[in-house]
Amino acid sequence: MKYLILNLLIGFLFSQTLFSQNKDSLFIKTAHNEALENGHSYEDLRSLCKDIGARITGSAEAAMAVQWGKKKMEDYGFDNVYLQEIRVPHWERGTKEAGWIENGNGEVYKLHILALGGSKSTNGLLSGDVVEFMTLEDLKKASEADVKDKIVFINQPMDQKHIRTFNAYGGCWPVRGHGAAEAGKLGAKGVVIRSLAIPTDNHPHTGSMQYEEGVDSIPAAAISTIDSDKLHEWLKKGKVTLKFEMDCKFYGMVKSHNVVGEIKGTEKPNEIITIGGHLDSWDVGEGAHDDGAGIIHCLEAGRLLKKMGYVPRHTIRVVMFMNEENGNFGGKSYAALAKKKGEVHVAAIESDRGGFSPRGFDLQSEDKKAFKKFKEITKVLIPYELNRFVKGYGGVDIGPLRGVFPGIPLFGMSIDSQRYFDVHHAETDVFENVNKRELALGCAAMTSFLYLIDQYFLD
Amino acid sequence: MKYLILNLLIGFLFSQTLFSQNKDSLFIKTAHNEALENGHSYEDLRSLCKDIGARITGSAEAAMAVQWGKKKMEDYGFDNVYLQEIRVPHWERGTKEAGWIENGNGEVYKLHILALGGSKSTNGLLSGDVVEFMTLEDLKKASEADVKDKIVFINQPMDQKHIRTFNAYGGCWPVRGHGAAEAGKLGAKGVVIRSLAIPTDNHPHTGSMQYEEGVDSIPAAAISTIDSDKLHEWLKKGKVTLKFEMDCKFYGMVKSHNVVGEIKGTEKPNEIITIGGHLDSWDVGEGAHDDGAGIIHCLEAGRLLKKMGYVPRHTIRVVMFMNEENGNFGGKSYAALAKKKGEVHVAAIESDRGGFSPRGFDLQSEDKKAFKKFKEITKVLIPYELNRFVKGYGGVDIGPLRGVFPGIPLFGMSIDSQRYFDVHHAETDVFENVNKRELALGCAAMTSFLYLIDQYFLD
Repeated sequence: MKYLILNLLIGFLFSQTLFSQNKDSLFIKTAHNEALENGHSYEDLRSLCKDIGARITGSAEAAMAVQWGKKKMEDYGFDNVYLQEIRVPHWERGTKEAGWIENGNGEVYKLHILALGGSKSTNGLLSGDVVEFMTLEDLKKASEADVKDKIVFINQPMDQKHIRTFNAYGGCWPVRGHGAAEAGKLGAKGVVIRSLAIPTDNHPHTGSMQYEEGVDSIPAAAISTIDSDKLHEWLKKGKVTLKFEMDCKFYGMVKSHNVVGEIKGTEKPNEIITIGGHLDSWDVGEGAHDDGAGIIHCLEAGRLLKKMGYVPRHTIRVVMFMNEENGNFGGKSYAALAKKKGEVHVAAIESDRGGFSPRGFDLQSEDKKAFKKFKEITKVLIPYELNRFVKGYGGVDIGPLRGVFPGIPLFGMSIDSQRYFDVHHAETDVFENVNKRELALGCAAMTSFLYLIDQYFLD
Repeated sequence: MKYLILNLLIGFLFSQTLFSQNKDSLFIKTAHNEALENGHSYEDLRSLCKDIGARITGSAEAAMAVQWGKKKMEDYGFDNVYLQEIRVPHWERGTKEAGWIENGNGEVYKLHILALGGSKSTNGLLSGDVVEFMTLEDLKKASEADVKDKIVFINQPMDQKHIRTFNAYGGCWPVRGHGAAEAGKLGAKGVVIRSLAIPTDNHPHTGSMQYEEGVDSIPAAAISTIDSDKLHEWLKKGKVTLKFEMDCKFYGMVKSHNVVGEIKGTEKPNEIITIGGHLDSWDVGEGAHDDGAGIIHCLEAGRLLKKMGYVPRHTIRVVMFMNEENGNFGGKSYAALAKKKGEVHVAAIESDRGGFSPRGFDLQSEDKKAFKKFKEITKVLIPYELNRFVKGYGGVDIGPLRGVFPGIPLFGMSIDSQRYFDVHHAETDVFENVNKRELALGCAAMTSFLYLIDQYFLD
């Protein structure tokens, strides 16, 4: 009798394990099939890119995108859809943006130029002799005599040798962020940087920059990589003058919104798993990869959960963050509000690395046990060509949650990065450069990973 | 004293292992750096696509490509460059290619149509009522009464649910290969198939097809996926007539060449590792992904080995195979010639899956120990985002080597397949659709993997 009971028990446990494995496999397979065969992702991204367009924080397009996101969540039957009112910076490019270089022979070349986000206007045509630095570090080491009243050109290329292009971006980001402040300290009139871009082409890439208090705020722009090479060549031959005009302007803080939609959990409804991307984009292109794709990954994951009738254990909260690009006021406000309301946040997942083939997820956590579990529960994703599960970075939008909920595990979706800095922050970041299948696979990856976190990671 | 010797020995062995690991890491890192920073791959592919163009077997372009390949290998200092004369089929599309559908209301719609490779001419405008089958299997089950004197339309889509699109292709390939023979058996006048393509667009995809002896050879063409949906819709409403004209023709067997270049081994110079892709392409587009990229992966691997001063243990033979697309006479002749000359072939690696991000390699072998070794020695590639090392398929060109050298391990380069069937065999398979970094990473992957095989796999 004892043996019979033991045997029954073993049989039961074994079948439970099998059932659990089959259940997981079935869920993941169904999510992929649905995303690939009947997915809404491509059409939804088309709509965000074409019906709304580029949507820089504070613009009419950004306000339209908030409406768009709210309606999508409502249409897809999310349980609780609302807007979080936040304050965000409002900067506009203006209507004038042009630049030229002129050499000693009077030859003139028109630049492909784009103001950096947050830059001051040039107040008419600004003209100065160019002084070139190959790195930001070289500029920092320069003396005022080298730089004063000149236009600084920082020609620091992204390092092609990195396998993951985000590492190359990390190495160059300070050029864009702090170039103007560093040049301003030495009395420069203006700064132009080599675009933070991988290809050699004529599409300049914008992005955020910061001024420093107590330092003259000088206009800052990016020029294309081809133009950077051209300017470099001209400078080797002699003196070059650069002229540029931009009437971009900061208009102060304005009202905007994060868009929030929930799928209520049953077992632990008060414990929240946030998944999100950012709804704002730069004002050139259409923000298709950055971060239209991330918005769609999360929206479609919510839609698929609903369509598949999945009842989560924890409450899943899909968030379309506003203002990742220039200030992260959406992410900061979201975390602050969570604290104020006394919410319990247990995990967050971000997608903000484009709409290419998904590869896995990064875990941002100091907990070794959590990492082991993360590796273990994601093995079931390997047949879906998702095999990159490593320690890494969650994302800008969800980052502030760590300040409010110490130790909260953050996950960043890992995506094939080879083409990302071809289009990032440039006019080429358009819907046509997103592949339907790759986008759909990203949605399936988000859905499947979210399921595994909800089911197995948090106990 | 004994202990001293033992300690010295252990120290020596340990340092050898460390040295070996460092040596491997250094080689792989250098190969990647060179390919990414100073690579010739993108310019070489541009040249093959733009200076030569599409290069169907038997065409002037194919002959020019042979010259091009030989010169490249010579310029890069390969040790022993020569042509292998082979006989290949010569089929031409001709100058006329058009099709229409007409419904009961007299409405006419012009099709995006492309003769399948090897098809007979229509001998003027061929017209017939359309009978649709959703799969090749359905056609096989049909009766002569359903099909006789009609134009058969096989509307079998690629199954989007497969994660690797090659599996979807495998499921549809017989439609293109045998559709005409099956329709011919039942007395059809002609056959049109839904393009073997992933996207819904207006670019028809060609590819090889075969007639069967004793069966009427009827003209066969592919129409675009959009047109396939259109025709399907029209057929739901009533009778549809299809008219098409094509003057494609088979011109018999002609002379052509495989291009061969070696890097002589020192330890085992008579043992050959072949790496190759195919130089021929279909006659639409530029054969950029299929298989310009594979040709470049192998050419650049050879160039990098030379540039890095690597002296291989075995003889590395880079082969640009002719005629993979319609007959594989290059691959068959290569294996036959190897046998005739009494060569010793120990391994072969093929790249014929496009120029997207590399993922790893497949091993085609029944040897379990070999598979274990393969998994073991490739671990060093994981930091390069190469982590797909599985049992699989080598490739069409190198396949015949298995008939001559039983048990020879064949490797196929595994490449992100999501976009491949967007462009495969279509006018969209052009240089502009290949990404510079992705191509360079493929070259670095080929170089690194080849090194590991040469160093560790074959003992």
